Amino acid sequence: MSEPKSANITWHGAIVTPEERTAAVGQRGAVVWLTGLSASGKSTIARRAEQLLLERGHSAYVLDGDNIRFGLNKDLGFSPADRTENIRRIGEVAKLFADGCVVTLTAFISPYRADRDSVRAIMPEGTFFEVFVHADLAVCEERDPKGLYKKARAGQIPEFTGISAPYEEPAAPEMTIRTGEGSVDACAMQILDHLAKAGIIRA
Amino acid sequence: MSEPKSANITWHGAIVTPEERTAAVGQRGAVVWLTGLSASGKSTIARRAEQLLLERGHSAYVLDGDNIRFGLNKDLGFSPADRTENIRRIGEVAKLFADGCVVTLTAFISPYRADRDSVRAIMPEGTFFEVFVHADLAVCEERDPKGLYKKARAGQIPEFTGISAPYEEPAAPEMTIRTGEGSVDACAMQILDHLAKAGIIRA
Repeated sequence: MSEPKSANITWHGAIVTPEERTAAVGQRGAVVWLTGLSASGKSTIARRAEQLLLERGHSAYVLDGDNIRFGLNKDLGFSPADRTENIRRIGEVAKLFADGCVVTLTAFISPYRADRDSVRAIMPEGTFFEVFVHADLAVCEERDPKGLYKKARAGQIPEFTGISAPYEEPAAPEMTIRTGEGSVDACAMQILDHLAKAGIIRA
Repeated sequence: MSEPKSANITWHGAIVTPEERTAAVGQRGAVVWLTGLSASGKSTIARRAEQLLLERGHSAYVLDGDNIRFGLNKDLGFSPADRTENIRRIGEVAKLFADGCVVTLTAFISPYRADRDSVRAIMPEGTFFEVFVHADLAVCEERDPKGLYKKARAGQIPEFTGISAPYEEPAAPEMTIRTGEGSVDACAMQILDHLAKAGIIRA
């Protein structure tokens, strides 16, 4: 739906303009949307990038699938409809953070292309960066830090991405990070370099 | 519900500790939860406080009822159940912002005491500040900037707080701001002074 269900609401004129906020905070906001299979390395890269950004005096925050499901989205499961609502809500929250001039790193499988494109569509032009965290299924299944692939193969987890539910690779991501080829630091620095070139943070 | 519906998830060990983040950002995070009748002045005070905080080099952001209903909560109306879910989601988002060391000001009618207490319950001790924005119903109805009270009195808006739906006043708010007695700046400064005394921001 494009219109809110609740009527009789109007936009507030924000006292702080986006330009004033950017000047006050010293950077623009952006959403760095990491997508990829379970165990591909999304959270690890996002959290290292966050740390590097904070060390450099930038404002950064990670929205993490494993964490957010204990809070905002604890009413949602893994059905296709719930996955879509999961990503919709996270996209809206990421947009709020970015509006607050925070570099917002999100680390969710987000397997459906349409869902990711919906988030891109609500973001201001040039502030959404889709990052395909690429690792072969066999590699992810070999890592399997939480034993989830093993359980999925045993039929104990239904609708598991890559095994019994689809993963739709990004068609034209802003970045592709191959986590089998380089250190965590090198992967995280790819993100910082890209944000600097895009004018989100100072170089 | 207290447990997430989705199983097979674990907490990530955050690389950035809360202490490291506080040091990097230069302040603690907090939720300043403004509650009161429509037209009591919540958004105006929140946005002025945000501006004053940003001018002083602090990190601040307003979550606003009128704005958030176009995004995160556009699927929700004004029934009691939807109002509760509205506040639950906003509380979880405010918690995320506060975790990112942002002073998060929320401006929602939030008429139910139980809903506000639920938000308080998920916040770390000493980081939730309930602010009762107090103005008599007659004053709010006289202001009526959007003509909502007029419509509610005419029966055109069902479940309107103060007219056809209840407002439960805070029993023990951290602050009470009487918007009929003092300028917007004076009201906003009450918040900054309180945050400084509480050690959230530097004095």
